[in-house]
Amino acid sequence: MNVEVTEPVPRPASANPDVPRSQLALRRVAIDTWQENVAFLHRDCAVYRAEGFQALSKVEIHANGNHILATLNVVDDDAIVGRDELGLSEDAFAQLGVANGHLASVAQAEPPESMGALFRKLAGERLSRADFGAIVRDIAEHHYSKIELTAFVVACNRDELDREEVYFLTDAMVACGRRLDWHEPLVVDKHCIGGIPGNRTSMLVVPIVAAHGMLFPKTSSRAITSPAGTADTMEVLAEVELPLERLAEIVRDYRGCLAWGGTAQLSPADDVLISVERPLAIDSPGQMVASILSKKVAAGSTHLVLDIPIGPTAKVRSMPEAQRLRRLFEYVARRMGLALDVVITDGRQPIGNGVGPVLEARDVMRVLQNDPAAPNDLRQKALRLAGRVIEFDPDVRGGDGFGIARDILDSGRALARMNAIIEAQGSKHFDYQHPALGALTFEVCAPHSGVVTGIDNFQIARIARLAGAPKVPQAGVDLLHKLGDQVAAGAPLYRVHASYPADLEFARQASGRSSGYTIGAADEVPQAFVEF
Amino acid sequence: MNVEVTEPVPRPASANPDVPRSQLALRRVAIDTWQENVAFLHRDCAVYRAEGFQALSKVEIHANGNHILATLNVVDDDAIVGRDELGLSEDAFAQLGVANGHLASVAQAEPPESMGALFRKLAGERLSRADFGAIVRDIAEHHYSKIELTAFVVACNRDELDREEVYFLTDAMVACGRRLDWHEPLVVDKHCIGGIPGNRTSMLVVPIVAAHGMLFPKTSSRAITSPAGTADTMEVLAEVELPLERLAEIVRDYRGCLAWGGTAQLSPADDVLISVERPLAIDSPGQMVASILSKKVAAGSTHLVLDIPIGPTAKVRSMPEAQRLRRLFEYVARRMGLALDVVITDGRQPIGNGVGPVLEARDVMRVLQNDPAAPNDLRQKALRLAGRVIEFDPDVRGGDGFGIARDILDSGRALARMNAIIEAQGSKHFDYQHPALGALTFEVCAPHSGVVTGIDNFQIARIARLAGAPKVPQAGVDLLHKLGDQVAAGAPLYRVHASYPADLEFARQASGRSSGYTIGAADEVPQAFVEF
Repeated sequence: MNVEVTEPVPRPASANPDVPRSQLALRRVAIDTWQENVAFLHRDCAVYRAEGFQALSKVEIHANGNHILATLNVVDDDAIVGRDELGLSEDAFAQLGVANGHLASVAQAEPPESMGALFRKLAGERLSRADFGAIVRDIAEHHYSKIELTAFVVACNRDELDREEVYFLTDAMVACGRRLDWHEPLVVDKHCIGGIPGNRTSMLVVPIVAAHGMLFPKTSSRAITSPAGTADTMEVLAEVELPLERLAEIVRDYRGCLAWGGTAQLSPADDVLISVERPLAIDSPGQMVASILSKKVAAGSTHLVLDIPIGPTAKVRSMPEAQRLRRLFEYVARRMGLALDVVITDGRQPIGNGVGPVLEARDVMRVLQNDPAAPNDLRQKALRLAGRVIEFDPDVRGGDGFGIARDILDSGRALARMNAIIEAQGSKHFDYQHPALGALTFEVCAPHSGVVTGIDNFQIARIARLAGAPKVPQAGVDLLHKLGDQVAAGAPLYRVHASYPADLEFARQASGRSSGYTIGAADEVPQAFVEF
Repeated sequence: MNVEVTEPVPRPASANPDVPRSQLALRRVAIDTWQENVAFLHRDCAVYRAEGFQALSKVEIHANGNHILATLNVVDDDAIVGRDELGLSEDAFAQLGVANGHLASVAQAEPPESMGALFRKLAGERLSRADFGAIVRDIAEHHYSKIELTAFVVACNRDELDREEVYFLTDAMVACGRRLDWHEPLVVDKHCIGGIPGNRTSMLVVPIVAAHGMLFPKTSSRAITSPAGTADTMEVLAEVELPLERLAEIVRDYRGCLAWGGTAQLSPADDVLISVERPLAIDSPGQMVASILSKKVAAGSTHLVLDIPIGPTAKVRSMPEAQRLRRLFEYVARRMGLALDVVITDGRQPIGNGVGPVLEARDVMRVLQNDPAAPNDLRQKALRLAGRVIEFDPDVRGGDGFGIARDILDSGRALARMNAIIEAQGSKHFDYQHPALGALTFEVCAPHSGVVTGIDNFQIARIARLAGAPKVPQAGVDLLHKLGDQVAAGAPLYRVHASYPADLEFARQASGRSSGYTIGAADEVPQAFVEF
């Protein structure tokens, strides 16, 4: 295998040998508590009564030489846990790694090691490298309850972290997970900070750059708050959940892959943090930088092109804000030893036409096929980003990247490389000219004639999600007009696809409240801050 | 009954009639989720698969004309919920108020009405009266998940709320619960912001002031983060969980009571907020003011004496901080129409000798009995606070309150009134001269001779809690020396009482790490900022 995996250094067990413990039989309680370890004790269990536990207090569980921390839930039903049993949620059960029925002991836990640091952050203090190391390790090891996790996330929200704290956080997130080494001097990646529906450039940049010969082992996330992530869209075309060994073979053979990053266990604290950031729609600069850069460094990338879109409904809404974010990324990347090229792009509207996994896969394949129906904005943006990645190649002159990328795409070499990667990962049947879309549809039409002067990224994403994307890959929004288009009264602006009546109805209500489109005069189209 | 109860205005059901719904049989899942509504669906349930739910997403449940919001947990075990059942946690089941087995429908919920306001607060914005109204109503109605609750609490932490926002929050907290009206022009109360172990002045101030004839319907909380609340300590002597009708009779007959406030359903949002503030040890000025004043106004108080202790290990550590907090209390009290007298007191060390319910009850009874062993600091502080309350009486001249209070205490009239209240609430057997204390004990002794120059309130409280207080009322810490005392090397400083070996061991380890006492030279005793 051409990739070397460094596992994180385990911590010694911190059992407290002086505390007397009672033994209970372990029982798997098949409740999915989503990244939180939960222990269940019967209210009449002798241990619960004797130990002075409180609801939601933290307990330490020991069995067979392993131990975990968990949040305690009290149960009044023998069918869930008996009086001589200790129930564990699926996460906790898997983490302890001991069989059903095995004896385990439970005791009040000392608070996690890092709780003092968390309290100091809540009090507004600046934290040290050691503090972030302890907090992130406790988070990755599921020692934090949802309440504690949320407190950490909100206390680090907005500009609460200074840039060195962001570096400490990033470094700690890398340290607590696996780390890959591809044994090549140049391992490239590209990433977008998100917020722009339909923005599937990675699925074009990877085959173009891999065809140029640079190593591009791309692992992506699934959608967190958006209607589709790269992994969700790639999954329409190919398998994305592959063992690391298989990924390494594919990368060796084709110089690139497009896989889901979850199996690699890179930056595991990030996955836990996302479980609370998602419902709160929190995406502060510090957390964004730490999340993105920790995953890239852990994945073994040496060179990264980062896409920061600006627009009235993008994550970043002004050039000064984009510059501030760019400098934070650059500072932390330098401290982490990662070469970074930030590209600020036009985020005034969705990229491409489709929003939702199948619709986005259609757009990507149209571009790769040089199909006349291919969305030009997606093509142009992908070429420019691919060109910037290609310019990391020391043999390429500054400014030549775009032309090289365009040649690779126009010649069909990008398509051939994409098809090879799809075959290698495990091809799924997909006919880009006749994609299977959700059969329940409605169209949203222009209320009067005029020019499209605004498309709200957030509202289009929301409608696509309500329609079922990404969980229902066939669902989403197909944009029929973009900024600057002249439309007649009653002309369809976009079509919504869903597979379930309730989803369709939710999407219809949302688009009825606000369509996401503004129709006005030609001179009201907002100017782009940047060229593409 | 001499008290009138105003119930909060209910909100109309916000059912969404256009969304198709499937019917499932309700099932009570006997898990205590502590102030969070949780719904359980089997992973293979047709509704779960069809509706596109996500783990931890919010669902709306309708049955028999009622509806609630709940956080969704996914289950893989038919013994917890079957494929055609909808499980509800105990809180959620009680709130929906429909029988086991009844048909219910479940659908994706629109986010709670106030989610936009929460997100704006997370983004650092100032919120309006209407925003706080919507947030607090959603919190009181259990529409928030623990994650959303924590986000609100942390986003309002420290000085994030300006004083008008604190008023809006307070007013909203009163509006969403019951409100009592005692039909008297002067209804007094006293309250301490907390943080000082052993500080059980209410149990002295109430009988003194009630004996003076002023109406003092005292409802208290149980301990949240401390080793004993007034309700926990009073419960050693008498029943404290009384129906409101019975409380009103006692107040009519004796002009006072000392009861637990939980049954009155005053400021219900506060109870929900505390469920996340407690594990995070969050007690910011804004939240403290809103919590305390909303309970007092809802309970029908018209005049309040507020005790703010200052000391190196008190909640408030400097006079400027105390003055800032005082002004915030005064501003909000005035907006709420509550007459307020703030008293800044000496918080350098615990008040009295005992820390823990039984030990504190002993100290209180010693003072009431004018026992020579009574702790003088507790007696003096109670007399001064009672004097300030008595000075709300328009017939009492400024400065005369202390003398009146002392006469009532010295004459035995306070003891007689306390005994009458205890009898009326339901007396428990308690021999203050031979209180039943936890049989497992150890003493912590002076490491060298010198003068006690510091007692850490926080560490003493922590040791008492680890020893089992307040859950084990017999547990706690009995202080044998206070600030300024001369001690010999090896002399016992305090004695720890516990009832369970594990508790004793936790307390011993904590006191081993830090005893909480500093022994130094006589001139190192910190000066008090204030007289008492």
